[in-house]
Amino acid sequence: MELLNVITIEDLKALLAENFSSYRLDTETIDVSVASGRFLACDTASAELVPPFRRSTMDGYALRSADISGASDSLPAFLMLRDEVKMGHPADTAVGPGDAVYVPTGGMVPDGADAVVMIEYTEKLTDNEVAIYRPAAAREHVISVGDDIKKGELILKKGRKLTAADLGVLTSIGLTRVEVYRKLAVSVISTGDEIAGPDDDIRLGQVRDINTYTIAAAAEELGCRVVHRQVVGDDAQLLRETLVQCREESDIVMLSGGSSVGVKDYSQQVIASLGEPGILCHGIAFKPGKPTIVANSGGKPVIGLPGHPVSAMLVFSIIGSYLVRLMNCSEQPIESWVEAFLTENVNGAPGREAWQMVNLRRNGEAYEAVPVHGESGLISLLASASGSVRIPVNTEGYSKGTAVRVYPL
Amino acid sequence: MELLNVITIEDLKALLAENFSSYRLDTETIDVSVASGRFLACDTASAELVPPFRRSTMDGYALRSADISGASDSLPAFLMLRDEVKMGHPADTAVGPGDAVYVPTGGMVPDGADAVVMIEYTEKLTDNEVAIYRPAAAREHVISVGDDIKKGELILKKGRKLTAADLGVLTSIGLTRVEVYRKLAVSVISTGDEIAGPDDDIRLGQVRDINTYTIAAAAEELGCRVVHRQVVGDDAQLLRETLVQCREESDIVMLSGGSSVGVKDYSQQVIASLGEPGILCHGIAFKPGKPTIVANSGGKPVIGLPGHPVSAMLVFSIIGSYLVRLMNCSEQPIESWVEAFLTENVNGAPGREAWQMVNLRRNGEAYEAVPVHGESGLISLLASASGSVRIPVNTEGYSKGTAVRVYPL
Repeated sequence: MELLNVITIEDLKALLAENFSSYRLDTETIDVSVASGRFLACDTASAELVPPFRRSTMDGYALRSADISGASDSLPAFLMLRDEVKMGHPADTAVGPGDAVYVPTGGMVPDGADAVVMIEYTEKLTDNEVAIYRPAAAREHVISVGDDIKKGELILKKGRKLTAADLGVLTSIGLTRVEVYRKLAVSVISTGDEIAGPDDDIRLGQVRDINTYTIAAAAEELGCRVVHRQVVGDDAQLLRETLVQCREESDIVMLSGGSSVGVKDYSQQVIASLGEPGILCHGIAFKPGKPTIVANSGGKPVIGLPGHPVSAMLVFSIIGSYLVRLMNCSEQPIESWVEAFLTENVNGAPGREAWQMVNLRRNGEAYEAVPVHGESGLISLLASASGSVRIPVNTEGYSKGTAVRVYPL
Repeated sequence: MELLNVITIEDLKALLAENFSSYRLDTETIDVSVASGRFLACDTASAELVPPFRRSTMDGYALRSADISGASDSLPAFLMLRDEVKMGHPADTAVGPGDAVYVPTGGMVPDGADAVVMIEYTEKLTDNEVAIYRPAAAREHVISVGDDIKKGELILKKGRKLTAADLGVLTSIGLTRVEVYRKLAVSVISTGDEIAGPDDDIRLGQVRDINTYTIAAAAEELGCRVVHRQVVGDDAQLLRETLVQCREESDIVMLSGGSSVGVKDYSQQVIASLGEPGILCHGIAFKPGKPTIVANSGGKPVIGLPGHPVSAMLVFSIIGSYLVRLMNCSEQPIESWVEAFLTENVNGAPGREAWQMVNLRRNGEAYEAVPVHGESGLISLLASASGSVRIPVNTEGYSKGTAVRVYPL
């Protein structure tokens, strides 16, 4: 029996970066309104000054701050009320010495004025006169032209995965179209004679395909498009033809099953035969998911995931999300977690990083992490686990009651 | 000036639950392969036993455990090798006393056998004979029929937001179609004379529309479909007509702007005029986002968000996600966070829950939360903030260096 040559997750990520960080992905220009979740293909700078005119941040009176120095409740300053600025319209009347003009929040501040006093600290005496009860510093409640964004200022960096807020940023600087990377094309293949495809009649001894569903949906969540999904039996020739076609049509090929060391495991030979530089690693120091193959086949990643559905999902969640960011020139995101107390002991795996699946539940203000086990309860495990606790290499485990970080699945 | 009657976020959620938790949403039946992110419309039970046959969890020999009790390295048990089970095929040869049959991981365990011994603890001596060096307990490495899922067992509950893993669960129990709620239809409207729509020429004094972009994208991320998006000027009659039409065509109406107390604020009157029971609250004890209106207009929620883009996004992130779950009969999810150290003091807001926007950055193994301020840097704030720190009502704030929870935006 050939032994797997395992590498750590960190080393695997370094290998992936070395092989695929300069992958060339085509770009396309799309409407900002549909760009959420897409990856920016170039640094984006503002072609406009924001705001393009001086804006008030309060409802109040635009005036010259020098006119009201020392104003107080007992000794107000009296100003001539010259005009009222309407929202969305230019401020037509300039403010001279002794003048005031009403401005709403977000309205344009007239020429000549250098501050706005909040309406709460004023009193309109007549149609032509207003009393001001507070002094103001120059520029108080006034946003100057370009205060927010300068012309040519870098706003969003290449590789940014656009959020809902980012769409607002883009439209605010006058962009309604944006250049993004084309969605990564992914092929998802399940292998094994024991797997019945969704439209196949199931034979005694077979189980239904799970992995093309879970891996395809997970790839779409990451921002990929799935161009090919298929179940292939244990037939090396057919598997090879399928992989060749998938590699042709996609940026990433994901297959599952057939990657442990055993009689029926054609995957490694078939993947190795696809082309240079070939297999980068066969086996990762990770539980569950040790028998994972990663290859660079003519510049494209071909990943052999374990056949076990939970292992396949977990390994994909690490390698897939890392690769997708890498190939979109995007920084790896900061992961968030929930702190929870273990309801029982969990064990590490000697020499491997272990992920223990858990179910989160509330307990008053705190959370509990209930380990979910699953040799026989595979489907229950898939259905009930809501997160994972990571146990680093060479850590024995954590005991019941320990506060751990649960990373949502 | 009319004062806002503010309520807390908790009280607002209770009001929303009271008004909209029995909202009737139509259902549709779709392919499992496209069901990720959709909400299940009924409790889903298994129509099958999983697994449908006894499976081995290891590569090894199926045998009768009684035949190998006491087997050891020095005193192995010798069994007759009768057959080899092929993956995906029935086990044709029953195991009698003194017999062994090879079974791969996931293969069918033959009748008569009650345990599997891992191949590591065996030696194939000839084509017909195998030595076993370990004893096995009954049922060792064997998953019985229905061990994973019983027929009729509840697998996924009504209201479940389907994950990639759930698709695998559904297909594993033989379902390729699933009944889900129709996507909630949402209308998104920006109001104000100062707002220029994406296709409008911008006038001096106007700014570009941001909120229809950000709120629509955020609604889609929550699993809604946006059926209507529009910019409406400060025209009560036009706003009313637009709202009436939107309420007709959608399940939720979101408008932004025009909700603070001021001369041009038609929103409240217009929303109140739409029908019974009408406005539930005008003003929430939340910073930033106090001038928020929530109404029940003929059974449908009409939400008036603040006009300020950051406030609109934050308020939508609270009310929108809560409502979407509620109207899909779905449990509220457990939020995850990143623990980070504040790089400067942040202040609470008297009588209000405050959300301080921050930018997360790595500092070695830990994270820092850098507060982002934005009276004048609105767009920069939208573009750079990656999370929020929540400061509860009547909390003064947190000082520099405090470890706080940052909730990703």
